[in-house]
Amino acid sequence: MIVDVSKKILIVGLGLLGGSYARILKRFGFHVSTITKEQSSIDYAINEGIIDEGSTEIDKRIIGEADLVIFALYPHVFIEWIEKHQKLFKSGAIITDVTGVKRSVVYKIQDILRDDVEFIAAHPMAGREVSGVENSNDKMFQGANYIVTPTDKNTPDAINTCLELGRLLGFSNVTTLSPEEHDEMIGFLSQLTHCIAITLMTCNDKEDMEKFTGDSFRDLTRIARINDLMWSELFVANKDALLTQMDLFMNKFKELKLMLEAEDIDGMREMMRHSTRRRALFDKK
Amino acid sequence: MIVDVSKKILIVGLGLLGGSYARILKRFGFHVSTITKEQSSIDYAINEGIIDEGSTEIDKRIIGEADLVIFALYPHVFIEWIEKHQKLFKSGAIITDVTGVKRSVVYKIQDILRDDVEFIAAHPMAGREVSGVENSNDKMFQGANYIVTPTDKNTPDAINTCLELGRLLGFSNVTTLSPEEHDEMIGFLSQLTHCIAITLMTCNDKEDMEKFTGDSFRDLTRIARINDLMWSELFVANKDALLTQMDLFMNKFKELKLMLEAEDIDGMREMMRHSTRRRALFDKK
Repeated sequence: MIVDVSKKILIVGLGLLGGSYARILKRFGFHVSTITKEQSSIDYAINEGIIDEGSTEIDKRIIGEADLVIFALYPHVFIEWIEKHQKLFKSGAIITDVTGVKRSVVYKIQDILRDDVEFIAAHPMAGREVSGVENSNDKMFQGANYIVTPTDKNTPDAINTCLELGRLLGFSNVTTLSPEEHDEMIGFLSQLTHCIAITLMTCNDKEDMEKFTGDSFRDLTRIARINDLMWSELFVANKDALLTQMDLFMNKFKELKLMLEAEDIDGMREMMRHSTRRRALFDKK
Repeated sequence: MIVDVSKKILIVGLGLLGGSYARILKRFGFHVSTITKEQSSIDYAINEGIIDEGSTEIDKRIIGEADLVIFALYPHVFIEWIEKHQKLFKSGAIITDVTGVKRSVVYKIQDILRDDVEFIAAHPMAGREVSGVENSNDKMFQGANYIVTPTDKNTPDAINTCLELGRLLGFSNVTTLSPEEHDEMIGFLSQLTHCIAITLMTCNDKEDMEKFTGDSFRDLTRIARINDLMWSELFVANKDALLTQMDLFMNKFKELKLMLEAEDIDGMREMMRHSTRRRALFDKK
């Protein structure tokens, strides 16, 4: 479906991600509309030529005309939106999203959604320390992962449409995972790292430390500047998987601490060599 | 003393740091010699024109002629070297170092050292994932900290010489701390971050995680590629200070875990706002 540029795409929530989607999809020739909170975002996007039309209201015509609807909202806002307004979707429309957690969203939405509309979930793994459509750009997804998380309720057609969307957007790796695999992976690679960064940044408030900081500390705390509203919601939405990862981390950290207490040089060196070997796998290819 | 370029400087241990020192000091016109393990390092450095002479042996003439001796050795090797060979120093020579821990080295060396030779300790806070004189360069210290750690045994002259050395080498910030303040600071900013990175890298060996990794995880584990021989020694040499920092980190991490378990959104958001505010202090100026 997606390669047919006569289709209309609606983006709900025109921020950094939604704006970057709009920029790229408009360039391919799609009709792109938006429903978003701020009129200023719409004005900016029309002025930049990256959308055709937009509304801050629940515009029945815009929603009813869309063949593909992309939701870029906080998880609970997304679910509420579907509950309230799904009656306005065109029959046969495909719905997708950008939500950073999957199990708590995918099954719920698929459960409440009309039978003649299909929700295929996706997670574009891309973010910046900035936000807003004004910071969006069409190179944002180069080198990044796009993960589609289908369930038994999804059709091959919708899955393929979503995979194709990821490729059109310019993601370097477009793959599928189950919602469970996704949430475990994201719990480790993304959520645990944010937990570590904010802990490191708040565990020692001694003054003047910043005078002596080097690149290592800066690297480990870059993501300690964090959107508290979004991340607290994402943490709770993935609570069990994140707690499992936090336990794995804490147990290993305690092991290291015990080795240091015992001055077990051999044990520490073995852990460091393991770390060095494993880190090589994670280099940019 | 140091501005007098007729003085002779000896660097013991010609690796990444020692080589970078040699490169810069030779450019200022100092006579630079080295004593180091590998003949190939000496050959490379002479060929590059960054030292005047060097030996892999304990060369009595070279040592006896040096006005300033810079030690770039592992802590225990440094202490052994002083014990064995300090009789060869010229009377009035100044000794300094690059060791990353201070209390366990400074007091010991000052305790055993001859009365007519002065040890003023310093820590150039600069490192790379590469090593060896072949990777040294004369821009290495731009933006970095150089910390002199004087004790009651040091003279104002030697302290000033060491501070001036830091400025000549091109460090952006040249300051003094007590050995105790230094070790607390380094325990938090450098050693704790390395503990965290190697723990994160080894706490979950699930396969294929690297396929989905993004910049956050890469940033937090860049330093997980680690010289196990050096860092295990540095950890043990700063054991009490590092254990204190590990406890601070672990207690705060547990707090976050308890808040997540209780779904205490307000508590997590307050921690994230604290983190965001405090991170701003650590931005590059």
